[in-house]
Amino acid sequence: MRVVVPFGAADPKTRLAPVLDADERRALAVAMLGDVLEAVAATGRHPTVVADTGLADATPDDFDCPAPVTVDERPLTAAVNARLPGAGEEGDSADDEAVAVVMADLALATRAALDSLFAADADVVFAPGRGGGTNALVVRHPAFRVDYHGASIRDHRAIAADVGAETATVDSFRLATDIDEPADLVEVLLHTDGRTAAWLRDAGFSVVADDGRTTVTR
Amino acid sequence: MRVVVPFGAADPKTRLAPVLDADERRALAVAMLGDVLEAVAATGRHPTVVADTGLADATPDDFDCPAPVTVDERPLTAAVNARLPGAGEEGDSADDEAVAVVMADLALATRAALDSLFAADADVVFAPGRGGGTNALVVRHPAFRVDYHGASIRDHRAIAADVGAETATVDSFRLATDIDEPADLVEVLLHTDGRTAAWLRDAGFSVVADDGRTTVTR
Repeated sequence: MRVVVPFGAADPKTRLAPVLDADERRALAVAMLGDVLEAVAATGRHPTVVADTGLADATPDDFDCPAPVTVDERPLTAAVNARLPGAGEEGDSADDEAVAVVMADLALATRAALDSLFAADADVVFAPGRGGGTNALVVRHPAFRVDYHGASIRDHRAIAADVGAETATVDSFRLATDIDEPADLVEVLLHTDGRTAAWLRDAGFSVVADDGRTTVTR
Repeated sequence: MRVVVPFGAADPKTRLAPVLDADERRALAVAMLGDVLEAVAATGRHPTVVADTGLADATPDDFDCPAPVTVDERPLTAAVNARLPGAGEEGDSADDEAVAVVMADLALATRAALDSLFAADADVVFAPGRGGGTNALVVRHPAFRVDYHGASIRDHRAIAADVGAETATVDSFRLATDIDEPADLVEVLLHTDGRTAAWLRDAGFSVVADDGRTTVTR
């Protein structure tokens, strides 16, 4: 199985702008990427990062990516589809190998959660994200293609049905939790202890509890 | 194992007031309770509802609760603690039996997700909710007590450590998704097909996709 981790390196995490400036958002995105790559590596697999711009231009000077990086300037959907089974762009014998796509902002990802995803037996396996996203998936069917616009989990189910691919869904809070908005940051502080949590604590974030859902303060 | 489903029947789901009036919130809460009770029953267990007021006064006329109901006017924390192992209030031989507490607003709960919770082997098993909550738990240790104020998952871990209880955590998006706020409703429409989803569709809710997380419109 090949594991692809798409990484939007150009102006990442804009929905966190209310609490983090552009440099901080970049640093947080890199910390999350590091946590995701480590969790994938812990499963015994070797991820490849697919970035939309050169990481050297977009990341902190001290960032040493622990995985090979390919630059693909196409939008996310096209860049992923070019790497799925049957796409033919790889041009080698691996073209029918299963491909996993794991988003770079899954800061809660663990080896156990990813093992469940990778081990699920179906043509296409989904890990839904909150709010209709598709945070991770495994593709073993040569006709399935992604479309990350809109409510992608619904679209992906329809696409799988259209091409006759059997699907499975992994029920994981960790994989469902992508970090996009200020309210998401508390999940990192409550449920992880990796680079991302350390970065947030260093930046002055801490957990605050009120009457509704718990959030963060800085 | 006894399964307790606390149900706040008096003015439920106030954080949904921006999109639902009081009668509607009550009807939605009852639909969710029905879905949760059905999922528990599918695991082969017989849940008991613990409500903070008489259900007959607080629910639609046609509501026929499929599980026995006990009224307990105490706050949630006290009402749950009175029913945990070692509390002694039950006054019978079941006092050392394991107790599961499953919140009534887990509209995405399924038999499989609850089986994972009930089967996990530890003195205390947690299913964390988004935003620091504790959406479900299983207690087998006679000294563990709940405290649902604030970031309860963090407090519950500390309480377990204080009494020397071994803990486990179930990683489930379905059990992490309590329905409290308007943005949560889309998860019901995208991932379930029970009473709650039917009620929302009848009330005119549908999924809308924008550039961020998918949400609902009415």
